[in-house]
Amino acid sequence: MSMQDMAKQARLAGIRLAAADSETKNKALQAVIDGLRANTARIIEANTHDMEGAEADGLAKPLLKRLKFDEPKIETVIAGIESLIGLDEPVGKVQSVTELDGGLELSRVACPIGVIGVIFESRPDALVQIGTLCLKSGNACLLKGGSEAAETNRVLADVLIEAGDKAGLPSGWLGLMETRQEVSQMLGLDEYIDLIIPRGSNEFVRHIMDNSRIPVMGHADGICHVYVDEGADIHMAVRIVEDSKCQYPAVCNAAETVLVHSKIADVFLSKMKDTLEARGVDLRGDDRTVELIGCKPASEQDWRTEYLDLVLAVKVVDSLDEAVEHINEYGSGHTDAIVTKEQQSAEKFMQRVDSADVLVNCSTRFADGYRFGLGAEVGISTSKLHARGPVGLDGLMTYKYRLIGNGHIVADYAEGRKKFTHRKLQ
Amino acid sequence: MSMQDMAKQARLAGIRLAAADSETKNKALQAVIDGLRANTARIIEANTHDMEGAEADGLAKPLLKRLKFDEPKIETVIAGIESLIGLDEPVGKVQSVTELDGGLELSRVACPIGVIGVIFESRPDALVQIGTLCLKSGNACLLKGGSEAAETNRVLADVLIEAGDKAGLPSGWLGLMETRQEVSQMLGLDEYIDLIIPRGSNEFVRHIMDNSRIPVMGHADGICHVYVDEGADIHMAVRIVEDSKCQYPAVCNAAETVLVHSKIADVFLSKMKDTLEARGVDLRGDDRTVELIGCKPASEQDWRTEYLDLVLAVKVVDSLDEAVEHINEYGSGHTDAIVTKEQQSAEKFMQRVDSADVLVNCSTRFADGYRFGLGAEVGISTSKLHARGPVGLDGLMTYKYRLIGNGHIVADYAEGRKKFTHRKLQ
Repeated sequence: MSMQDMAKQARLAGIRLAAADSETKNKALQAVIDGLRANTARIIEANTHDMEGAEADGLAKPLLKRLKFDEPKIETVIAGIESLIGLDEPVGKVQSVTELDGGLELSRVACPIGVIGVIFESRPDALVQIGTLCLKSGNACLLKGGSEAAETNRVLADVLIEAGDKAGLPSGWLGLMETRQEVSQMLGLDEYIDLIIPRGSNEFVRHIMDNSRIPVMGHADGICHVYVDEGADIHMAVRIVEDSKCQYPAVCNAAETVLVHSKIADVFLSKMKDTLEARGVDLRGDDRTVELIGCKPASEQDWRTEYLDLVLAVKVVDSLDEAVEHINEYGSGHTDAIVTKEQQSAEKFMQRVDSADVLVNCSTRFADGYRFGLGAEVGISTSKLHARGPVGLDGLMTYKYRLIGNGHIVADYAEGRKKFTHRKLQ
Repeated sequence: MSMQDMAKQARLAGIRLAAADSETKNKALQAVIDGLRANTARIIEANTHDMEGAEADGLAKPLLKRLKFDEPKIETVIAGIESLIGLDEPVGKVQSVTELDGGLELSRVACPIGVIGVIFESRPDALVQIGTLCLKSGNACLLKGGSEAAETNRVLADVLIEAGDKAGLPSGWLGLMETRQEVSQMLGLDEYIDLIIPRGSNEFVRHIMDNSRIPVMGHADGICHVYVDEGADIHMAVRIVEDSKCQYPAVCNAAETVLVHSKIADVFLSKMKDTLEARGVDLRGDDRTVELIGCKPASEQDWRTEYLDLVLAVKVVDSLDEAVEHINEYGSGHTDAIVTKEQQSAEKFMQRVDSADVLVNCSTRFADGYRFGLGAEVGISTSKLHARGPVGLDGLMTYKYRLIGNGHIVADYAEGRKKFTHRKLQ
């Protein structure tokens, strides 16, 4: 099927899926669980092929680990679907009701966005998570996973599609893209697709943002900061910096820059240096940092770099204000933390730092849909419109206004024969 | 000042304005009211110059009427600001609170979007409405009004800026653009500007959308439909079509196409024809309509045209489904109405029509922020992301996540020493 036909079919299916009731959708989700169990052998066989291919291609070990999809991983995915079944029905939730006049009632009602295109990395579990989140939220979806996981994804998409068929979902609600060419074609199909969620490298996300009229939700950079305030608990600060940098350096919510108040820079930096160097972190400092701990000098480019590796830029600042200015200038609006004992400093930091997640006395690594208690996440958004920060089910919803009258016309109000009551009912 | 400097200043001011308390912002709004009263003579003088220029340029009468800004209009604007002062503070509203673990609390808090660029038509009252909405919502703004209103807008912007200065708002929170060149430059300043709201012709809005990386909120087309269902009250249907088409044809929520069920097409169309022709409406029908009432034939292009004039396209359909398909294919996702006696048809229409506003038994002309009871509106959005339909104060807000801990690190959870509680507190 051509990409255009797949998108057109998704659009038509999306309109029907939006009207599907809770029972039907939950039946489909249960059928996905049953299908995953019934097809476990087939899934693992496909995954074994993918793993063999990836090993032959010399894929790095951590990536191989993410690609692997075995029984324990299938069970984890099933647990996720079970909790999704248990969630409240998001479609049709009434957000507000206003009486505009006698017999003329306006309600704002949650509804799905429509058709969502998602491009994700080589974790096969991502396909199931994203597909089932879209199903629950009533959105049709077009999915493209990593090419290393092609065989696994094909089987998983089959399982989801079959489950949908069994439960009576409109056919075409889920489409699997398999080539880069299809992704390129998708970018031009703004007539059918309402939102693209790209997950991947900066360059890739930026490429998508620059080459489509379709709105994009996600983030290009994750340049996260930890600011250690004057009078911070040094031990806590070092632990938080260590966790923010080292707990999983390859991800967007890992810290890339530490800012420290000049009044405690001496003590803090020498302790931080010991801890981080023991973890193999390469430090790059501004002049004052270099003077204090003798690390490599940082260039202007360092403040704008998402290392995604055991590298950390360090800068000494003279005030909270200077830290906030640095973050708002060089950061990516993703996640930034302050370590402080002062309530007022914490408040000022949270108000002034213009980022999706502003954290006090904890690690930047907490910024994630699962840890935030949103259930599975479809991504983290650094846009300020629609959804911001980790995006769960909520971010896949929009609303429409329903106005029900009984022959009401505007001329009556414009010409003074009738008046609006504008009474909030809910 | 260069456009770049103006935008940079707005960005810095926005961060401070976001932290301004209710009292300061309401004091500024009161100072705007005082300023409008104190400067009434100056405002009217400037507006008289604008009116003279516009008349000399041969501006059409309805546009001259919109350009005029006299004492009654100033009082209307003041009444709007008074109601704005009375509204709840939107910034800092806590949307949810979750305990992630003991001592680790996450809250989602409403905050301003940042810097908003608004381009609007020649009504000077729009400048005051939009400027004060931005102020109340804590957003810095860059405003460009119609060139015909240049002198009036300059005085009004002065009044708003002076009021802000008096109340202690950060300087640069409001910037006035005066040339098209500045607007063009603004489109490239995505580093400083978070959102553009363009109001104006389709071509203009489309131009903005295609030439900026900054998100755009608004709509290009308003191709609104009225569908008259089988068994509808004919009298009611004719009245609703008349109002939807004729009450103010030059605006986006006026109807452009009527669809009618074949079972009542004969009776309905002949009555509609009499009523609309008496109002000077030019009808263009599909084959069946032409056969029934002998109007001009409609071309494929008619279904996609926003006439903004006393012209109406008419089509006979054989089912509600066909009507819904036509609307989803040719409509603009703005506002569409059904006239029906059947609850089930109404429900199906509201669910399946993929538009911001779906209406039952009332005129499309109701789709507007004031009539919907949202207070002033900054525009009507046909996007499905962020705000949809008429956009009031709500649509100028985003949120951020605040996470407050006490030295919490992710390694403790990843390595099983601690577990998340994920307890909803609010």
